[in-house]
Amino acid sequence: MSAAQFENKVWESLCNFVVPYWLVAVWLCTCIATEALAATSAQKPNIVIILADDLGYGDLGSFGHPTIKTPQLDQIATEGLKWTNFYVASPSCSASRAALMSGRLPARNGTAPTDPARWTFNTNSLGGLPPEEYTIAELLKDNGYATAAIGKWHLGHLPKFLPTNQGFDYYFGIPFSNDMAPTLYRSREVLPEHVDMFEHPQAKHWNVPLMRNEEIIQQPADQETITRQYTEEAVRFIKNNRSKPFFLYLAHNMPHVPVFASPAFRGKSLRGIYGDAVEELDWSVGQVIDALKKSGIAENTLVIFTSDNGPWMVMNQYGGSAGMLRGAKGTTWEGGMREPTIFWWPGKVKSEVVTEMGSTLDLLPTFAALIGASLPKDRVLDGYDLSAVLLKNAKGPRQVMFYYRFQEVVGIRHGRYKLHFKTSDPLSPSDAPVVHEPPLLFDLLVDPSEQYDVADQHPEIVNELIKIRDEHVASFTPPPSQLDLVTNN
Amino acid sequence: MSAAQFENKVWESLCNFVVPYWLVAVWLCTCIATEALAATSAQKPNIVIILADDLGYGDLGSFGHPTIKTPQLDQIATEGLKWTNFYVASPSCSASRAALMSGRLPARNGTAPTDPARWTFNTNSLGGLPPEEYTIAELLKDNGYATAAIGKWHLGHLPKFLPTNQGFDYYFGIPFSNDMAPTLYRSREVLPEHVDMFEHPQAKHWNVPLMRNEEIIQQPADQETITRQYTEEAVRFIKNNRSKPFFLYLAHNMPHVPVFASPAFRGKSLRGIYGDAVEELDWSVGQVIDALKKSGIAENTLVIFTSDNGPWMVMNQYGGSAGMLRGAKGTTWEGGMREPTIFWWPGKVKSEVVTEMGSTLDLLPTFAALIGASLPKDRVLDGYDLSAVLLKNAKGPRQVMFYYRFQEVVGIRHGRYKLHFKTSDPLSPSDAPVVHEPPLLFDLLVDPSEQYDVADQHPEIVNELIKIRDEHVASFTPPPSQLDLVTNN
Repeated sequence: MSAAQFENKVWESLCNFVVPYWLVAVWLCTCIATEALAATSAQKPNIVIILADDLGYGDLGSFGHPTIKTPQLDQIATEGLKWTNFYVASPSCSASRAALMSGRLPARNGTAPTDPARWTFNTNSLGGLPPEEYTIAELLKDNGYATAAIGKWHLGHLPKFLPTNQGFDYYFGIPFSNDMAPTLYRSREVLPEHVDMFEHPQAKHWNVPLMRNEEIIQQPADQETITRQYTEEAVRFIKNNRSKPFFLYLAHNMPHVPVFASPAFRGKSLRGIYGDAVEELDWSVGQVIDALKKSGIAENTLVIFTSDNGPWMVMNQYGGSAGMLRGAKGTTWEGGMREPTIFWWPGKVKSEVVTEMGSTLDLLPTFAALIGASLPKDRVLDGYDLSAVLLKNAKGPRQVMFYYRFQEVVGIRHGRYKLHFKTSDPLSPSDAPVVHEPPLLFDLLVDPSEQYDVADQHPEIVNELIKIRDEHVASFTPPPSQLDLVTNN
Repeated sequence: MSAAQFENKVWESLCNFVVPYWLVAVWLCTCIATEALAATSAQKPNIVIILADDLGYGDLGSFGHPTIKTPQLDQIATEGLKWTNFYVASPSCSASRAALMSGRLPARNGTAPTDPARWTFNTNSLGGLPPEEYTIAELLKDNGYATAAIGKWHLGHLPKFLPTNQGFDYYFGIPFSNDMAPTLYRSREVLPEHVDMFEHPQAKHWNVPLMRNEEIIQQPADQETITRQYTEEAVRFIKNNRSKPFFLYLAHNMPHVPVFASPAFRGKSLRGIYGDAVEELDWSVGQVIDALKKSGIAENTLVIFTSDNGPWMVMNQYGGSAGMLRGAKGTTWEGGMREPTIFWWPGKVKSEVVTEMGSTLDLLPTFAALIGASLPKDRVLDGYDLSAVLLKNAKGPRQVMFYYRFQEVVGIRHGRYKLHFKTSDPLSPSDAPVVHEPPLLFDLLVDPSEQYDVADQHPEIVNELIKIRDEHVASFTPPPSQLDLVTNN
């Protein structure tokens, strides 16, 4: 029964029993007055970003997975915005996260890789997201927010790059990917003798640190309970900050390979260890929503769920699925950069499926608009303010998406059309890409799986997209990559 | 706000205003009594099957499509059972529908094709579903139901095979596929000169009849408004039969190529003409649900939505998508035979995602169980009673699925594992299949896209599945195929 049906039933029942009309009238007036009070006394909204790691577009029930059960995420996808054309700025972890944090393209903020041997920051990195970037955390902290980063950082692990030096009051987590510092193997190729490390991984095989602020508190981190630990930290932060505006960046290490799930979830899903981990993430989302509701602040909190890049297809069934989207992590096919995304804000964001273009690049300007903050004037931002899409079901302001492979634009989407200059094989994304001359053109609205090249039918659109690419490329020179700064070790 | 939250709010409001406790108690007792009365006085449930034509597993919003908007179907999928492992018995129209109607495998009831040139009944067919098959309509009619078939039949168009001779009181529709009797072309290959017939089809190019009972009332049928016409007929049937139990079989001709949408839907979706047609189907489902609600019989009606086989991938973007499932119409990959399926029955069928195995073969025995009817004892049925899955969230009774190519078992699923002996190319399913020696084994729960052959790891499971196949094949000899009965014309 819907709330409206229930309301009708209650109303009928009341009428049947001849409740005095004055009583009903008083009750209704009180309800209305309470709503109005809540609306006018609202403080700045809390913001929660929940970021999954390597979760594919097709890995949630509401995005089409047949056997992974995600009732909590499905519920908020139904109640809020289910966003089906939402992108990250890079198909790899560090660059994607740097773009989200700064609202600027990786090629602009120094985090785009230059070399297939260094897709992301690693244990030998000396670089990170440059401190002069103005992060979402800094923007919100400057506007009176309590800020916490819980989970995977991956924007530099030397002290000056850590969250606590990028606008966060508090950090708890693994500062890079959970497959780094392996103690038993060097190659990521799945050989028969490696299968058990994927099927039944043990935390001791990856010597990753767990940090609180700038201190290592455990090494190797207890990855088997890492999602639960992050969740408990997140719930604690929410409860402790219920009376002031806060920003929580909850960036899970899961379901990145090696995939771990807490004992309560291990072996419970139908989809193997990968499904166990996603179902634990779903539980975690439910815990966060529950904490917001119990703290009485759900209606003043915007929750965003997305992933950092597409599924790691190289890992076979231990990685995820991009659903009907082509490609995977490491590629500029849609499956590499389009993410299963949900915006939830009860009473503010209506239940809707959004097909407009959006990007994690847009979060910083959107948050600035939502809280009435000004944006930095001394730099180019690559994001758009999506607040009218969220609050007014307006058309989206974003018309263009650039698909970078390292520092090079190899694809561009303008409106419904996407042009590929080069593409990578999702099973070996580090290999040299295939060059398309002439480029491939796909109508992504009609053909989301990028199957039917329509370049011949639309030469004028091909030329227009080439022109937009050329102007973009000519507009700036990427700085040297922070990813090239490594020890010789 | 959920119903529960609203209930709490009402309760709190009532308490705040010191409503006399006796009043609340009387009201609650009355509510409970009303529920009980409704449950005990219920007549036999109405049954509505809505069957789409060539709709792919991935073509609904709730099954993962990013740009086709299906709010009505998504709503009933959320309220009812979203069934993610539900199959048809054949990857082609006639055999699939014959199995649904009779609860028996096409190889058993004489409708499995034997020849790639005759996948389905056509305008030159002399055969049909044999009248001695006991159809769902006959079962329900024998138990006091009013019965109507509205839409595509495709089980023989000669009088003795028509719905009115197979248990239906009433028939309105096109008796076969909407691409039959072409007036302009013979080949289905999409050549440049054919594109306009797919992009902007005109009804006059397919000389298909529209029938009422056994009379042709229009030829060519006005396909441009066919979904609307079927919907209006369905709503009229529901309203006229609101006071007695009824069975409505609403089998749309859409979104089978050539794809048509009524003027109100044409050009409206983001997914092109195919999306327009699916969105009109979604509207149609909404009209049916609305008619049931307005007639006050929704809570006594089981509505089932599914499709007859996978998407017609040969038709490029004019066909649909199987989402993350491999293959398409005409193949025994999952994409050919697993369908986006919803069971909706407010107050009886709970909101749930079901991953058990189910099949259209199971509908007949399930309906018999729901209405307390006995099944025919003189024949082998291939279905299982799913009523406990629907009403009690029980485990499913079906453990095995046979994947037939024509009269041959080329694949078998037992539990989570599927074995392929032969597979077809979804882009040329009529070509000779690829033979797999040794056969391919997939874990469908972990690997729904059938990517990772695990036969080497589970030789005992391979042998077990081969044994089940052998026993099944030895258990009966298919009768001559009705599809081979054609005029020389």
